[in-house]
Amino acid sequence: MKINNADRAQILTEALPYIQKYKDKIIVIKYGGNAMINEELKNAVMGDIVLLSLIGIKVVLVHGGGPEITDMLKRVGKESRFENGLRVTDAETAEIVQMVLAGKINKSLVNLIESRGGKAVGLSGADGKLIVASKLDEKLGFVGEIEEINVEPINVLLNNGYIPVVSTVGCDMDNNVYNINADTVAAYIAAELGAESLVSMTDIAGLLRDKDDPSTLIPVVTVSETPQLVRDGIISGGMIPKIECCTEAVRRGVKKAFIIDGRVPHSILIETLTDEGIGTMFVPGATTLLEN
Amino acid sequence: MKINNADRAQILTEALPYIQKYKDKIIVIKYGGNAMINEELKNAVMGDIVLLSLIGIKVVLVHGGGPEITDMLKRVGKESRFENGLRVTDAETAEIVQMVLAGKINKSLVNLIESRGGKAVGLSGADGKLIVASKLDEKLGFVGEIEEINVEPINVLLNNGYIPVVSTVGCDMDNNVYNINADTVAAYIAAELGAESLVSMTDIAGLLRDKDDPSTLIPVVTVSETPQLVRDGIISGGMIPKIECCTEAVRRGVKKAFIIDGRVPHSILIETLTDEGIGTMFVPGATTLLEN
Amino acid sequence: MKINNADRAQILTEALPYIQKYKDKIIVIKYGGNAMINEELKNAVMGDIVLLSLIGIKVVLVHGGGPEITDMLKRVGKESRFENGLRVTDAETAEIVQMVLAGKINKSLVNLIESRGGKAVGLSGADGKLIVASKLDEKLGFVGEIEEINVEPINVLLNNGYIPVVSTVGCDMDNNVYNINADTVAAYIAAELGAESLVSMTDIAGLLRDKDDPSTLIPVVTVSETPQLVRDGIISGGMIPKIECCTEAVRRGVKKAFIIDGRVPHSILIETLTDEGIGTMFVPGATTLLEN
Amino acid sequence: MKINNADRAQILTEALPYIQKYKDKIIVIKYGGNAMINEELKNAVMGDIVLLSLIGIKVVLVHGGGPEITDMLKRVGKESRFENGLRVTDAETAEIVQMVLAGKINKSLVNLIESRGGKAVGLSGADGKLIVASKLDEKLGFVGEIEEINVEPINVLLNNGYIPVVSTVGCDMDNNVYNINADTVAAYIAAELGAESLVSMTDIAGLLRDKDDPSTLIPVVTVSETPQLVRDGIISGGMIPKIECCTEAVRRGVKKAFIIDGRVPHSILIETLTDEGIGTMFVPGATTLLEN
Amino acid sequence: MKINNADRAQILTEALPYIQKYKDKIIVIKYGGNAMINEELKNAVMGDIVLLSLIGIKVVLVHGGGPEITDMLKRVGKESRFENGLRVTDAETAEIVQMVLAGKINKSLVNLIESRGGKAVGLSGADGKLIVASKLDEKLGFVGEIEEINVEPINVLLNNGYIPVVSTVGCDMDNNVYNINADTVAAYIAAELGAESLVSMTDIAGLLRDKDDPSTLIPVVTVSETPQLVRDGIISGGMIPKIECCTEAVRRGVKKAFIIDGRVPHSILIETLTDEGIGTMFVPGATTLLEN
Amino acid sequence: MKINNADRAQILTEALPYIQKYKDKIIVIKYGGNAMINEELKNAVMGDIVLLSLIGIKVVLVHGGGPEITDMLKRVGKESRFENGLRVTDAETAEIVQMVLAGKINKSLVNLIESRGGKAVGLSGADGKLIVASKLDEKLGFVGEIEEINVEPINVLLNNGYIPVVSTVGCDMDNNVYNINADTVAAYIAAELGAESLVSMTDIAGLLRDKDDPSTLIPVVTVSETPQLVRDGIISGGMIPKIECCTEAVRRGVKKAFIIDGRVPHSILIETLTDEGIGTMFVPGATTLLEN
Repeated sequence: MKINNADRAQILTEALPYIQKYKDKIIVIKYGGNAMINEELKNAVMGDIVLLSLIGIKVVLVHGGGPEITDMLKRVGKESRFENGLRVTDAETAEIVQMVLAGKINKSLVNLIESRGGKAVGLSGADGKLIVASKLDEKLGFVGEIEEINVEPINVLLNNGYIPVVSTVGCDMDNNVYNINADTVAAYIAAELGAESLVSMTDIAGLLRDKDDPSTLIPVVTVSETPQLVRDGIISGGMIPKIECCTEAVRRGVKKAFIIDGRVPHSILIETLTDEGIGTMFVPGATTLLEN
Repeated sequence: MKINNADRAQILTEALPYIQKYKDKIIVIKYGGNAMINEELKNAVMGDIVLLSLIGIKVVLVHGGGPEITDMLKRVGKESRFENGLRVTDAETAEIVQMVLAGKINKSLVNLIESRGGKAVGLSGADGKLIVASKLDEKLGFVGEIEEINVEPINVLLNNGYIPVVSTVGCDMDNNVYNINADTVAAYIAAELGAESLVSMTDIAGLLRDKDDPSTLIPVVTVSETPQLVRDGIISGGMIPKIECCTEAVRRGVKKAFIIDGRVPHSILIETLTDEGIGTMFVPGATTLLEN
Repeated sequence: MKINNADRAQILTEALPYIQKYKDKIIVIKYGGNAMINEELKNAVMGDIVLLSLIGIKVVLVHGGGPEITDMLKRVGKESRFENGLRVTDAETAEIVQMVLAGKINKSLVNLIESRGGKAVGLSGADGKLIVASKLDEKLGFVGEIEEINVEPINVLLNNGYIPVVSTVGCDMDNNVYNINADTVAAYIAAELGAESLVSMTDIAGLLRDKDDPSTLIPVVTVSETPQLVRDGIISGGMIPKIECCTEAVRRGVKKAFIIDGRVPHSILIETLTDEGIGTMFVPGATTLLEN
Repeated sequence: MKINNADRAQILTEALPYIQKYKDKIIVIKYGGNAMINEELKNAVMGDIVLLSLIGIKVVLVHGGGPEITDMLKRVGKESRFENGLRVTDAETAEIVQMVLAGKINKSLVNLIESRGGKAVGLSGADGKLIVASKLDEKLGFVGEIEEINVEPINVLLNNGYIPVVSTVGCDMDNNVYNINADTVAAYIAAELGAESLVSMTDIAGLLRDKDDPSTLIPVVTVSETPQLVRDGIISGGMIPKIECCTEAVRRGVKKAFIIDGRVPHSILIETLTDEGIGTMFVPGATTLLEN
Repeated sequence: MKINNADRAQILTEALPYIQKYKDKIIVIKYGGNAMINEELKNAVMGDIVLLSLIGIKVVLVHGGGPEITDMLKRVGKESRFENGLRVTDAETAEIVQMVLAGKINKSLVNLIESRGGKAVGLSGADGKLIVASKLDEKLGFVGEIEEINVEPINVLLNNGYIPVVSTVGCDMDNNVYNINADTVAAYIAAELGAESLVSMTDIAGLLRDKDDPSTLIPVVTVSETPQLVRDGIISGGMIPKIECCTEAVRRGVKKAFIIDGRVPHSILIETLTDEGIGTMFVPGATTLLEN
Repeated sequence: MKINNADRAQILTEALPYIQKYKDKIIVIKYGGNAMINEELKNAVMGDIVLLSLIGIKVVLVHGGGPEITDMLKRVGKESRFENGLRVTDAETAEIVQMVLAGKINKSLVNLIESRGGKAVGLSGADGKLIVASKLDEKLGFVGEIEEINVEPINVLLNNGYIPVVSTVGCDMDNNVYNINADTVAAYIAAELGAESLVSMTDIAGLLRDKDDPSTLIPVVTVSETPQLVRDGIISGGMIPKIECCTEAVRRGVKKAFIIDGRVPHSILIETLTDEGIGTMFVPGATTLLEN
């Protein structure tokens, strides 16, 4: 389709109320997993983030790792052992996780943002004691749970015009490194920052009543409805932690949390700057929208 | 044409480099005459200004009057006498000009900006001695020439997030009111502010080699080429003052000045945020683009 | 009387405690009606305001219109119809009111202040949504009642050393213009600003027990006493709205409100910087001074 | 003479242009000697200083000592020996000078200013190394000449709304105390502060052509004329150092320096806030006003 | 003992946690009496204060007088009369006390601090109305009790990098001077400043169970224990006021108060920057450490 | 040796002039190679940095890698090929260098600083485009030379109280990663920051005339003398780049550059806070100290 410049101008104009709504607000974007693999998509996402930042929204990017961690572990000959579905993480594994996250993926994302004209600085859990953790379970080794979140370095960067890019690696004061669930970290950081919204970019279309039928997308869920959705099996498997972090963020004061499809080009702009809700939005309150 | 949200997002993305270019820069927009009559267009222009302001551009709106002044003079029974094509302005006429500009058009523009979510404050020449004038020619009465431009109130408003809306009425320290050419005032204000660009919204397509053939639009002119264009009769009649103010602004240090067609919807957004130049741009330098 | 410089110095010295009392405090001065007609007096009042501003008092000038509005309506051939003593205001009348207030009187007052060495900027209801109004009564047309007062633009100007001069024209978000009682606006603005005092300059000597005998001036009234004064007929006719706005201001937190005689030269300086109370002062509290 | 409040207001109004002229400017007032003895006068002078400070002038008070020093030296049994008219100052004498100046007179002046509603803090040469001195002549002991003036503590106090009151005692980095000419110190401090004017309050009417005839007062002198006035004997004796410090201040960039009669009540207000020049003003330039 | 630079570095390193603890906190040091007589010690104390200031601790020095006052009174022939152990202070005595404190000792301490590279400014009770007092008992003359403490000038100096040096002379608004107990003033100032600690430098080792046996030093006392210690005679004589001011400071919110031995070289550094508590510390709370 | 607290205090006092000298100045510390291997030493160095930071010195830590990079390359099976003594760096190698430096060593240093009570944030070349590089020589692959140094993120962190810890990895705007000489980066950063000094911590005692005889240490070298020292063979081999970066820093305006022995405990404190120069200092100027 050929779009002329008059249409372009019209479209920019239609974004006006959305820009007004988010002006000077903080949006925490959780980005990771399969949504991160496709290079072209990744480039587009970074472009979207630069655009949001430029029009006055304070964007914080929280990223995870995924396949690149597995690749590197394989390359250095570390076999992964699992305990109740959780990867047992010895000190060496934790260190490799950190290297891949903070030393490769983080710097690459920072670089992509800079290449598109944005200003970014990467942070990891040790920086300014951003993410202080302790062992979740001795048997799992350095799988961490959050002890303390210090968002001061994020605020320093935001106030100086930088987009903070956060690797979700925990630290403690004995120089240990912890593998931590990125969704949980994003939820805690969003809450500590008093963010307007948390956007979790995944590789699914949102919360579906029938996971094989995209037309059954549930557009809005109140946090009080989620237990029933779990009991009904609509939220299940790998969705559980993602949705828990959305509801956790909302419970801790974030106004809205979204699960959107990172595979859709510019899905974050569509969600933020148009009237089209894509994916599922989690909001506070008890209104049982589900019953309708 | 139906444009979907994916296209919308794509278009927003394509505006990114233009937003980066103008971020935190000052644009002075001269708006007046016939471009101001159509209510729908006026609304659209105010929307464009709010959008530019919201994405971080510092916009100053300078407006003239036109037909509404003539109407009011007629209503109060003032006949206009002309001397060499310039309206002879007695004290009473000057006062009515001021009432219409500062008391009606200015407040209406401020209101339209506020209605679309912007923040605006109107200013006239007396406010903070913004435009101090004296008589151009005793025979013409209170037709003013600029003695002094004090942009401090404009800067105070810009720094506090307001869009200043300026009525081009001059004052002196004896409580006289002067009718001043709005294009000239816009050029002087742009220069004093160190503006990035001056955009003059008119009711023509730009500078045409053959005024009846839109395809002969001259897209770029250097200020050194304008005398030849006058001699060739390409710049003539009512165009002369408009173009003189563009070249005057550029000579005083404004980076670029534009004449664009205010009748084209969103022409200011098209000029500012797309790769399509519409109208004619005036730039410094002696390069004779015309000879090519 | 010849006053020598030693006496002058002595008098300046005696103003010291009064200057200390008002230093950095806000005084809202309501100025209008007949007190505004005499040019010499108007000049003197503006001089007084510049002096107060210069010695560190934050002055806000709120003005009304009066005869000049009636003149202009007559000139354009608008007849005024009255409903229960209130002028029925159609859209066109409201617009002419705005033109005269914001486009003529306001700019003239700003100019007089600047001519005496002060710094001033004019504001009207639309500027920064200073005065948002709605219809008081459908039958009266655009006679407005206050919906919202936004003093941010006043504070921006005060903090940058300007004297804000306010025209009491209301606006709404549909580009309508409202004729509003200037006394009420002054009271609301004084309250929103947390002003130290509201001074209403009128053409009477103050509140008189016997309106024909200036020696029966009541110097101080507590807000709780006013109902009785109305019942006793001491406050009556055109005095009622003026006194209501004084008591309203005091009820909303302004420390003191004054009705002073604008016809007395420098009455505002006498009230502010000497030990002579002129006019009537309204203060909070229930103490029945009247009984004494 | 009875002055009514209308006259009072008129007089305040007439001070307006003078207040505008000095607003936010620095005036250094040198106060000492006989002008300081009369308690009532001293009180009046402190009141004048509070008034000037309150209306926005930055006042610095530099004081000397005089009879109180002699009294104290006598009480502790120190005889003064003179060498070429200069008091030989041993370490003990210097210390007593400091005690009287910084520990008695300074605190008393600070207290008087505070009592009249001003804010003051006293400083001596050691505070923030304000006045660093060395021996002028080994034979004279601790008679100091200025090595270094550090006005930072004065600026800190002025910027926080205090009137600095300066004792003219010099210090060095070996804990020595120096007796320094107060006029010279005032001139240096005024120059370092970039003061608008230096006012030296003395007990004479100003510079007189015939010292016994007040009608021969010379109102204005340019610094280039002073040598001739010395040669003519018009400036002689105790006047020489006072006038040298005025001309020195002007030469170092202070705009104007005055010698005024501290015995005239409110002489400093008369000089600053009225059109009456009292005393003699020293200005830069070579114009030989004397020849007229 | 010869200490090499490696040891030096090691020792600096060991001070790290103590520096962290006091960083940007306020410490009020009361210095006076016999601890002030020895010149070498005084020099060392001033050096310690400069060091504390330089490493980021906000130090306020409050000093008394002692023998120098007695000397001066003797020199000018004032006999002291005592009433219940308190010196009867006539106006002249009070003035001499002020001269010695504010005009000699204060300036000498300021000078010593400056000589060691620190920045200091001296203050007395009159400066900024720091210490407003009234008569404690008409019979005692100008022996003052505290009416009001205004720490604004202290904060202005601290915030501009100066060490305030305070003479404990009281003032009132009638230009009277009061002799006030320096310990009490220090306690009040520490409380008003929200100080981290008050350190009283004396010439005893601390609070001893047996005043002749240094090994019976009581290292920590809670404020609730002091009455018992008084009843037991452990706190007695001249110790009572010193300890009362420590407990008073703690009761008013100062975190800790210390009595340390000013005769021990660098005792203040030892107390502040090492793990060795010297002297006695007073803390809030009721825990009866004494019973253990 | 047992050092008592009195000695401790004495030593702290003796550091006073050195603290004064460096207060608020920037010191860039280059740390790497063998000096980094010993864990105890590393801990001590981080403690020294926290101490310097705490006493008001602005410390920037620039680190290299060394053996850990070689280990990781070995683990993932990358063989290194050398060209003229420089390691040929393919894209994969460059990425592993980045992972080890920015993802492991950097975070570990940040963590050690935080554990000792400091505040630190890690940066790499991509962060805020700190180090923009291009290929030095096509044959060497991603061995970079510096194109641009942007110290803004370092300044943002310093101004907010953080110690910036910099990994010397270069970036370009095509998401490439460059291996860059850490000494050169440290020199450029020190120059851009206007640092007071650059301290290069190595594993040699300094510049020795006879490399086997520590007693032949050259304490001070002017930058003009280094060519002769190279010709004489005194500077040779691996020393050449280290010394070049010291002289380069000095040539670009850094006041002093040091090569000190990182193996000596607290060598950086000894150099900074004592009178003992250890290692070799490079200073500007042509004075041929060598000839003496």
